Amino acid sequence: MLQRKVIVAIADGIGDRPHPLIGNKTPLEYAHTPNLDDLAAKGITGMMNLISPGIPVGTDMGHLILFGYQPEQYPGRGPIEALGVGMDVKPGDVVLRCNFATVNEEGIVLDRRAQRIREKTDEIAAAIQEIKLADDVEVHFKQATEHRAVLILRGNGLSDKVSDSDPKAPNDGKPYLSIKPLDDSSEAAYTAFLLNLFLEKAHAMLSDHPVNLQRIAEGKLPANFILTRGAGQMVDLRPITEQLGMTGSCIAGESTVLGVASLAGFQTFSDPAMTGNIDTDIALKASLAIQEIQEKDMVYVHVKAPDLMGHDNQPIEKAKSIELFDQMVGMIAQQLPDDVYLALAADHSTPCEVGEHTGDPVPVLIYGPSIRKDRIMQYNELDCAHGGLGHLSGSDFVRTLHGFMGLVKKQGN
Amino acid sequence: MLQRKVIVAIADGIGDRPHPLIGNKTPLEYAHTPNLDDLAAKGITGMMNLISPGIPVGTDMGHLILFGYQPEQYPGRGPIEALGVGMDVKPGDVVLRCNFATVNEEGIVLDRRAQRIREKTDEIAAAIQEIKLADDVEVHFKQATEHRAVLILRGNGLSDKVSDSDPKAPNDGKPYLSIKPLDDSSEAAYTAFLLNLFLEKAHAMLSDHPVNLQRIAEGKLPANFILTRGAGQMVDLRPITEQLGMTGSCIAGESTVLGVASLAGFQTFSDPAMTGNIDTDIALKASLAIQEIQEKDMVYVHVKAPDLMGHDNQPIEKAKSIELFDQMVGMIAQQLPDDVYLALAADHSTPCEVGEHTGDPVPVLIYGPSIRKDRIMQYNELDCAHGGLGHLSGSDFVRTLHGFMGLVKKQGN
Repeated sequence: MLQRKVIVAIADGIGDRPHPLIGNKTPLEYAHTPNLDDLAAKGITGMMNLISPGIPVGTDMGHLILFGYQPEQYPGRGPIEALGVGMDVKPGDVVLRCNFATVNEEGIVLDRRAQRIREKTDEIAAAIQEIKLADDVEVHFKQATEHRAVLILRGNGLSDKVSDSDPKAPNDGKPYLSIKPLDDSSEAAYTAFLLNLFLEKAHAMLSDHPVNLQRIAEGKLPANFILTRGAGQMVDLRPITEQLGMTGSCIAGESTVLGVASLAGFQTFSDPAMTGNIDTDIALKASLAIQEIQEKDMVYVHVKAPDLMGHDNQPIEKAKSIELFDQMVGMIAQQLPDDVYLALAADHSTPCEVGEHTGDPVPVLIYGPSIRKDRIMQYNELDCAHGGLGHLSGSDFVRTLHGFMGLVKKQGN
Repeated sequence: MLQRKVIVAIADGIGDRPHPLIGNKTPLEYAHTPNLDDLAAKGITGMMNLISPGIPVGTDMGHLILFGYQPEQYPGRGPIEALGVGMDVKPGDVVLRCNFATVNEEGIVLDRRAQRIREKTDEIAAAIQEIKLADDVEVHFKQATEHRAVLILRGNGLSDKVSDSDPKAPNDGKPYLSIKPLDDSSEAAYTAFLLNLFLEKAHAMLSDHPVNLQRIAEGKLPANFILTRGAGQMVDLRPITEQLGMTGSCIAGESTVLGVASLAGFQTFSDPAMTGNIDTDIALKASLAIQEIQEKDMVYVHVKAPDLMGHDNQPIEKAKSIELFDQMVGMIAQQLPDDVYLALAADHSTPCEVGEHTGDPVPVLIYGPSIRKDRIMQYNELDCAHGGLGHLSGSDFVRTLHGFMGLVKKQGN
């Protein structure tokens, strides 16, 4: 079987709708994208619904599908966040998203984010990591971006069927919540007990922690409490690379994408210059993609900015971020080896006028050796709707790529 | 309900990719196909993924779907092979693919194919058919092409969860394998016992068989052993014709296609002049199709050659075989009764550059009374990708045909 390779360039949230600020064009239509259009002219295009028409997906779910999993294999946000910050997550682990927060002596939450604390959260996290809850339960804790962190409980007899301690409401004088089991199992009761113990111990320890004493001296709110939410128990997801017998890399600035990639068995590449924003170093990303495809079978390279501009309802800025994506794709296309396909995809639409992810389909494109060209000359939401790939699901699109790589098992004989 | 009829012309493996030897066209684009293009201009076209995008299917699976079954109803290769050589296969039968082989006194396999024996295998098979294993177990055995044969065990308490006796490796001094149960059931243990007994009895009988004595006298290896593999238990598949209350015929040269057709309840027509290759008698096929559609509701007519040329990476020869298909379709179209649709389909793509079945979709077409024409003027992989049927699965395409025949039950009221 002929085995070829694939580079997938992902423009996060690129899909949009016509916007009055840019002449009722979509940002992708409005942007100057000679490289994307050149690939459209030479390749085959279509429209992709990540799950099904009309269903919006999160960045984590979208990438889970783009990396080759089925939507129903979604392991929950916690495990993906943990993987994204480089924690080792094992099947059975209960993973919770956390905030460093400030509470007063009555347990009233003064600030859910401890004034969006950024400094020395690593020192606080290292101290929390030392908390003992039970002989056979491991505690793993790591700071994430700004005031965020991740808690993992590892041991037998745990469950993710537990409530949040985070009251989530704005800081309006509500107390933090005691964690309760959400079903009748002994596992849920035990896990809730452990987590309430964790909250207490963390609070006691943090109240005297040098970083907090210094914050108080500086007139800042101390990060003296850990609010938990979104418990998820890690399922046993076999890496996609292992399932298909291939190797892969992922180049991205965003931790969610890197988390999914590492779950899927892809080697992750990041760099402070890949900011996950419009100032990201596209030349570095492009050269890494070309470098990695020499050794690997499949490389994903991700640009976050279009999504951010969509959330902010900035169609002109979104168009600019798409032009950045266009330049990165151009650099990759110029150096693309003969046996490598270059695919364009997105994890979801983020229409400016909505400011949120929507279920609008996204344009996709495949260019490469012996590709069946279609009649489409431009890469955008309107032209690609008539493309030769038709309308297909995220899983169908990814399987099509795996098929070109010779990795899909024949059914029947 | 208006009840019309359908002829489906199947070009095995016709789907391909642009190939440099023929000006970066696909063989179907490159071929001179006035009849196919005429139907494209007058009919409606689309692209079909037999199961789903990217999934390659075998000829048996592809035809199972084209005849109206769901992919998950695949009964395994053994039963289809048995049906293809004209054996009667009943639900519960355990069917094994076999080779006539040569072993020495220590059970070492000297030749897995007994020098690709072709002569007098029917005489050997007739002798094997007489072997008794148990009072309530029937043995059916029949020679297939060259060194191949099919064994059926029929009786209560049998299982297909048994290992192969065929070591499969090239003839490198390995012994044949004792057959073992593959699960803990008493059925598997019993079936393994029966099959090991079969191997012994067959070996004892074949060692003295006149055909083998003659072979030894001629300095040839005797076919003194039956290697078995791929046990499959026949499921209870109700014929499609019976499910839909219709009648049908299938005209083909290839045993796999004829096997599936007979499973589906279609009367099969073959002839030594229908060779399953490029010298097949297309005029005979066309006239049989027209003759059969007088009496039957649905007729399949099959041309194998494009698949063979794809496997051999012969794009020019593949184009020639497609021209043959075009001529056959032209003959059928000329004599097509007014109430009959003519559909074009394929079981899978066999791109020359790959030399294997791939998951690339295949072009499909429907022409006939009151058809909704689309804008497509040529029947090939690139034009039909923009066709009015869109992209659809094999089951959706076949159901569309059954729908035109008035055979699909209304849901709701």
